[in-house]
Parts: sequence; C-alpha cells; structure tokens
Amino acid sequence: MQAKTPSESKTVMTDLVLPGETNPLNNLFGGDLLARMDKAGSIAARRHSRRVVVTASVNHVSFNRSVPLGSVLTIEANVSRAFKSSMETVIDVWIEDRESGERTKANSAIYTFVAVDDTGKPIAVPPIQPETPLEQERFDAALRRKQLSLVLAGKMKPNEATELKAIFE
Amino acid sequence: MQAKTPSESKTVMTDLVLPGETNPLNNLFGGDLLARMDKAGSIAARRHSRRVVVTASVNHVSFNRSVPLGSVLTIEANVSRAFKSSMETVIDVWIEDRESGERTKANSAIYTFVAVDDTGKPIAVPPIQPETPLEQERFDAALRRKQLSLVLAGKMKPNEATELKAIFE
Amino acid sequence: MQAKTPSESKTVMTDLVLPGETNPLNNLFGGDLLARMDKAGSIAARRHSRRVVVTASVNHVSFNRSVPLGSVLTIEANVSRAFKSSMETVIDVWIEDRESGERTKANSAIYTFVAVDDTGKPIAVPPIQPETPLEQERFDAALRRKQLSLVLAGKMKPNEATELKAIFE
Amino acid sequence: MQAKTPSESKTVMTDLVLPGETNPLNNLFGGDLLARMDKAGSIAARRHSRRVVVTASVNHVSFNRSVPLGSVLTIEANVSRAFKSSMETVIDVWIEDRESGERTKANSAIYTFVAVDDTGKPIAVPPIQPETPLEQERFDAALRRKQLSLVLAGKMKPNEATELKAIFE
Amino acid sequence: MQAKTPSESKTVMTDLVLPGETNPLNNLFGGDLLARMDKAGSIAARRHSRRVVVTASVNHVSFNRSVPLGSVLTIEANVSRAFKSSMETVIDVWIEDRESGERTKANSAIYTFVAVDDTGKPIAVPPIQPETPLEQERFDAALRRKQLSLVLAGKMKPNEATELKAIFE
Amino acid sequence: MQAKTPSESKTVMTDLVLPGETNPLNNLFGGDLLARMDKAGSIAARRHSRRVVVTASVNHVSFNRSVPLGSVLTIEANVSRAFKSSMETVIDVWIEDRESGERTKANSAIYTFVAVDDTGKPIAVPPIQPETPLEQERFDAALRRKQLSLVLAGKMKPNEATELKAIFE
Repeated sequence: MQAKTPSESKTVMTDLVLPGETNPLNNLFGGDLLARMDKAGSIAARRHSRRVVVTASVNHVSFNRSVPLGSVLTIEANVSRAFKSSMETVIDVWIEDRESGERTKANSAIYTFVAVDDTGKPIAVPPIQPETPLEQERFDAALRRKQLSLVLAGKMKPNEATELKAIFE
Repeated sequence: MQAKTPSESKTVMTDLVLPGETNPLNNLFGGDLLARMDKAGSIAARRHSRRVVVTASVNHVSFNRSVPLGSVLTIEANVSRAFKSSMETVIDVWIEDRESGERTKANSAIYTFVAVDDTGKPIAVPPIQPETPLEQERFDAALRRKQLSLVLAGKMKPNEATELKAIFE
Repeated sequence: MQAKTPSESKTVMTDLVLPGETNPLNNLFGGDLLARMDKAGSIAARRHSRRVVVTASVNHVSFNRSVPLGSVLTIEANVSRAFKSSMETVIDVWIEDRESGERTKANSAIYTFVAVDDTGKPIAVPPIQPETPLEQERFDAALRRKQLSLVLAGKMKPNEATELKAIFE
Repeated sequence: MQAKTPSESKTVMTDLVLPGETNPLNNLFGGDLLARMDKAGSIAARRHSRRVVVTASVNHVSFNRSVPLGSVLTIEANVSRAFKSSMETVIDVWIEDRESGERTKANSAIYTFVAVDDTGKPIAVPPIQPETPLEQERFDAALRRKQLSLVLAGKMKPNEATELKAIFE
Repeated sequence: MQAKTPSESKTVMTDLVLPGETNPLNNLFGGDLLARMDKAGSIAARRHSRRVVVTASVNHVSFNRSVPLGSVLTIEANVSRAFKSSMETVIDVWIEDRESGERTKANSAIYTFVAVDDTGKPIAVPPIQPETPLEQERFDAALRRKQLSLVLAGKMKPNEATELKAIFE
Repeated sequence: MQAKTPSESKTVMTDLVLPGETNPLNNLFGGDLLARMDKAGSIAARRHSRRVVVTASVNHVSFNRSVPLGSVLTIEANVSRAFKSSMETVIDVWIEDRESGERTKANSAIYTFVAVDDTGKPIAVPPIQPETPLEQERFDAALRRKQLSLVLAGKMKPNEATELKAIFE
C-alpha cells in the first residue's frame, strides 16, 4: 500500500465546554475529554485507513491544565505511525483565550486504533511517511512506545525492545 | 475597529454521529444537527468579536441530505458579515465517504449572533473585509437577508429594503 | 384528501430547563431550544399527515428572550399550511413566571417538514383549512415564505413569486 | 388560601422517543420514563403552588405497556389533592398510534411533591377543589394513599388510618 | 428451581453526581435518581433470574435527603422476594461524606421486575431464601406489598389480602 | 499520615450498557468507557485521600474485549500506590454473562489522580500499605510506571530511573 502523510489524516474538532460536561469544580470533566479525544483520534485513524476502526489502547494522557466551563476547545489529531493494522495517533488539545485569541496547549495524548474488516478482523493499513521534523520525531517515538506496550503486556522481552532499551543506556 | 477577514473566524468541528444522536430512521436527528451548527456558528462569532455572543436568529437552514449513523461530519463556520453588534455566520455541513474519502455537502445554514458585554448589552464588533469571490457574494447576500429579517419582523418597510427589493425587479 | 384544521395537529411540549441544557450564562442553550422545537414541530407534522416526517428546512427563528435555568418552558406547534407533501409548522415558545403564573412569549419559529413513505419518498398530505383569523394570517404568510425559500434556493425566479413580490410594491 | 382546581395545574408534555432513550429491547428505558414523569409532576405541583417544589415520594407506578422507539408520548399531570405543604399529583402516560391517531394509556403514576421556601423549608399550599367525578375519586383516594404512606413509614398506627382501614372491612 | 439468597443478586453502583444531573437547587435531579435505581434494580433482578427483565412497577420511593452536586452516591440493590415470574427488589441509596468517609442513607425504594423470554412472555424465576433477619423482614413485607398492589389495581378483593389485612386489625 | 490499604478505597461501579452509549458496531463506545473508568478511579482516590481529586494522567488502557449493548459492566477501582500528593489507581472492567453469570475481564487501566486543597494546590495523602500478593505486585509496578511517566515527560533522566532501568538489564 502507498504511504500517506500525517497531514492527510489531520482532524480538527473545535467545540464549546457546556455546563453538562463539567465536574464540580466547573472545569471540563476529565472523562468527557478522554471521550472527545477518542472520537478525534478514531476519525484520524479512519481517514488514514478508510476502514472501520476500534480503539486498541490509550498509551498516555497527561492533564496539564484544567479546561474551564465556557472555553473554546480545539482537539487536533493525526496518525503518527502505522504498523501492520494498528495506527498510533497523537492528539493535542488547545484552549483559546477569548479576549486575546491566544491558544495554549492543555493536554496531549497518544491513542492507538486498529482497522478491522466487516467481520471485525484486523486488516492492513497504509504506512506513514512523515514530512516535518515534528512528524519524524513522533514517528520515531511511536516505535519505542509500541515496544513499551508490548513489554508491559508481557508480549516482548525487555532486552528485545532495542529502540526502547537504547534510551536507558 | 479594524476589519477582519472571514477566514480569521473560521471554525472546523469534525465529529462522529453516534447512536444516541440519531432519529428512528438511523439518521442524525435534525434537532441535534441544529444544536451542533449553533455551537460552530457561535464559536466563529466569538472568534471574530472576542466577546461573549448569544444566538439572535436562525435565518435559514435547509436539510438537503440525511446524515447516516456512523458518518464523519464536518461543520465549517465563519462570519460572513458584521453589522453594528450582530454577526451573520454561514455554516456548511459536509459528510465524508469512508471508503473514497470524498466530501459531500449535506446542509447549509445562516445563523446570526450578537456580541454582548458583561451586563448582557449589545456591544460593537469589527467589520468584515471579504477576500474571495465566495466571501464577497455571501457578504452582499447578508445585507439582503438582514433587510428581509427586518421586513419580516415589521421593523423595516418593504420599500425601504433597497437591496432586497432590487431582486424582485 | 380531506382538509384538516391547524388545531388537529396542535402539540404542547411543557418542560423544565435543567442545568445540563444551559449555556455558560445559565440560560437555555440556543441549540438545545432549536432541537426541542424540531421535535415539537415534527410531532405536529406527523399528527397532520399520520406519516413518518423528516425536517426539510428551518425557515426563521428569532431568539427574543433568553430562557433562564429552572424555567418552565412551553412549546406549542401546529401545521400552518400544507403543500403537496410538505408542511409548514409554526412553533411558539412561552416562559411562565413561577410566582404570577403569567406566560411570556420567548421565541417563535417556522420549520418545514416533509412526509415520506416507507422507502423515504415524499408522499401527499391533506390540505389545511384555517379556522381562526390568526390561522388564516399564518396560512397566507406560509405561501410567501415558500416562495421566498424557492427564490433563495434559486428554484423560482423572483418575478414569478407573485405573492412575495406584492409586499414590495 | 383559596382553593384551586386540578385543571389549573394541568401539564401536558408531548415528546418523541429517540434512540438514546431506549433499552436493549428498543423500548423506552423505564428509568427515563420515571424521570420524565417526575418533571411533568413537578411542573404541575409548581403551577398549583407557585413555589419551588421537590420530589417527596413516588407512591406507585405501574408499567402496563412498553413504549416503542419512535413513539409519540404524551404525559399529562395535575395535582389531585393538596395537604399542608405536600401535593399529590396523578400522571398519565399516553402513546399515540401514528396511522390511526388513536391514543392508548401506557402507564399511570402517583408522585408527591413538597413546596419549599427559599431556605428549603416546607411552606403551605392552596387546597384542591375537585370539579369532575374522576377528580373527586382521585381526591378521595389520595387521602387513603397518604395514610398508607404514613403507615408504611411507621409514622401512623394502622388502626388510626380510618379511610384506609375502611377498605379492608 | 433452586432457591437463591438475596446476596447472590446484590448489585453495587457507585457514582459521582455531576452538574449535568442536577436540578436548579444543585441537588441530584429526582428523575435521574429514579432512573439510576431502575438500572440497579434491574441488574439485581437479572442476576437472580439470568433472564432479560423489564420494569413492572415502582412500589414506593421516598426521598428523605437531597443529594448535593459532587456527592459520591452508592446504590445497593438485591432481590427481596420472587413470585412466579416477578421479583421485588429493595434499593438503598447512600451518600458518603468526603471528609469523614461516613455513609448516610438518602433514599430507599421498592421496584418490581418481571423476567421474560425471547418473545417477551413472562417466565418462571427461582424463589428467594432469606438468610439474615433484615432479609426475612423484607421477604415478609414483600407479600403484603404484592397484595397491596393487587388491591390497588383492582385485581384482588381487599378481604382476600390476608397478610395485608392483618396489619389493620 | 497513617497508611491505608488498597481495599479501603475499593470502588465498585456496576451498570448497564444502554443504546445511547454505543458505537456504530453496537458495542460500548470506547470514549464512554474511558469516562466511566475516570469516575470510578476518582472515587477510589477520593476515598483514599478524603480530598477533592483531579485526574493527572491516564497511564495505560488496553481494550482487550469489546463490550456489547445490553451488557452488565462492573468497574472495580482502588488506589495501588500513593506518592506525595498523587495516587495511582488500578481499574479493572468485567463483563458478566447473563445466562451463566460468569465474569470475564474486558479491560484494565491505570489512572493517576492528585489530591488538591480548596485553592486547587496539591496536598499530601496517606501512603498505601499493600496486603495481598497482587496488591504488592501492583504497588511495585507503580513506581516503575511513575519513573516511566517522568522519563517520557523529560522530568527524569533515563539513567536515574533505577527501578525502570532494571527491567532492561
């Protein structure tokens, strides 16, 4: 299959934070943000693969800044690396200051999706061809993250995780 | 105030149609789409004015194509023309074919928002400077739509609605 | 088909405004009201036609008064005029003062629905026979609104929109 | 305080059953219907008392007929009897056949609400003056139901529940 | 069928009260609590019967304490008595003080469910064998409640409701 | 502060999967599960700390089995290790077969929460004292996961992550 670039799967999901989605501190409820990121990542994976996709794992999400009620929130997702049938997506969350228009990054996450055929079986997806330095960096890190997932799941021996092991040496 | 271009307020809201948002025919429930367009338009109006905005009117929405469950839906909105404190926004809705990636326009709508200050009073907003032919066309049509609204509300005499009247001659 | 009166399709939807449906100003979120009016209008159109109906267009909605959290909201809808397979519905929204019991009109809207058969094709509906002066007035205005929609959609030449044109002369 | 009739608090809540409100059998989820009846009853109690009201108890609800997805549901509520600060409301639920327009009663419920002042303390409400035979019958039964509640809660001795006791003799 | 104990169907549903579920007084909306209790009770009935179950009636619910926004709420349900195909469930609702960890009972309810086969017809369920004094007490009361329901529905003559009648003598 | 055991924060959240929470394949929508796990984990962290808590990170979630519409889902969470003001929680998700009553693990996740005071500043929490071998194993793994998070965030040099590094040697 022909490689695609990360920008071909870029997905932008802008939305308002309404009262029904907040926690008792009047910030966006963490679980709601996880759900929105899941939707943004899955659309990116679907655009890359043109297949039905299912969430395989959430590799890491850090909540650096809370998102107040009434915020304009922009979630941007794209596929960072594709393996056989799985796709790692990077998802960035931005808040926009109403008065200045300035954007601040609130969160960042890595979700992995798998493309499936009509019977629910995994199916091959096109590889990724990174174009920018940031895309290349995320592409390289994706392999280490995949090794880490396999090690944590007991499906790869730590000393076989070559790229991952290298960062500890 | 310095004019802004329509593209400065451009808002993209990509999302999935989930089962909880469908009607009994398994298409996106019309009311849900109206609500999403309201959010997209209000973000565009807020980006243009950098103010709190409230929905003033929905001028026209036509539902040309139903949006099936599971669709990827992209709503794009921007301010087409600003009057003293009100902003007309044009909102386009696209569906994306999963297999081909092709986008089809499903709906199109005009919503008007008003910028308000902390006490809820209308407050002046920057004018719009259209850049492209489509933006210019929408800018011109916005005045006719405003006259039409005023005529329909009994706040302007039909024969004073110069631009609107012209199309019937 | 035998004509029906507007009161035969009258639909009353009383409800409370709960916190999950408000905007950051603690008023009913505009998009939520649009969705509720869509449901009320579609029930009226269904009662008139006894068919499955789909939303065809939202012709005009003006938001005159915001609806605060905790309000009792009454939405009243009925079919104002039927064309071949489409039905124009008028939808009025009232807020009720808790202490005095007095009702104030908060909004008013025009939505059009189309009756469809099992395969989704438009199907004929009974005509409307207005009974009261207000119903007659809305019946007459419906034709002008239909012409206006057709003109705006480029499906009718302005000078053929006889009833609409007349108001500018 | 001057008595009011049951019809002065009559509340009509017509609505559609959408997919997000169904159970896995594609009927209206029971819990959702309980929630809608609570809203209808509380509006009736508020209209009678013109006070803030809170749910005190659900006395009896029987689910006679399931309500299929896509139904038009009409909930009708009014105050059947007022005690010092509490109000018993009777709530009837109707489904409407789309083709014939015929209405069938699907459920019936008794909810009790208490009027409270700004500090949340119970406050007196007007008495009810029944007008029709059905209203009179429900008015009489309300006293027996109140006695039953008190007996069940251990706040009244069974042999003091005169009206209730009488039906077993 | 072999009897089961109430503890075999015990169901624990712990949850947070979020802003989208509150009433205008910032307490859990009564209707929402009714819906959650319905879910907890139906899971208990399903665990007892291992069948699809539908809500048959809500026999009594009293709202003793309001549940504030942000509370941790624990709903505990189990089957208290099984009749031929129906099961009475008792449902207790607890709030937990964040600082002391102490639990207070906020509400208590009785819901009845019926087990159905694939065609929706009632089907036999195992009997209940109470183990603790509280379970025995609830088991005995369940029969009186069943008789009361039948009397109220006009399906049993009051003087045939032996156990129920006894409490008035 | 005195140590607490993992079982003191154990939180059980049993619930039904309703149609409004599914994806187009009729399984529980991944984002919805992430949101539910966030609530379960935050209740466990709150029970351990008796403080307001906020989500700090989602360390790893793998979706091993999809959860079909109509399932009874049990989410169990407890604090596995506490650091200064942060708490790692382990969250297990079980599905229950209706007919056999057998439970299968569907998912497993690690979420980290931070306890905050009234001004939102992190505040110290009690340590964890594991009791069972599984609790001890999760307690040990939590330190490696914490080091991993710090390394990934660039806040710790890989060669200082002693416990983590050890697994690659």
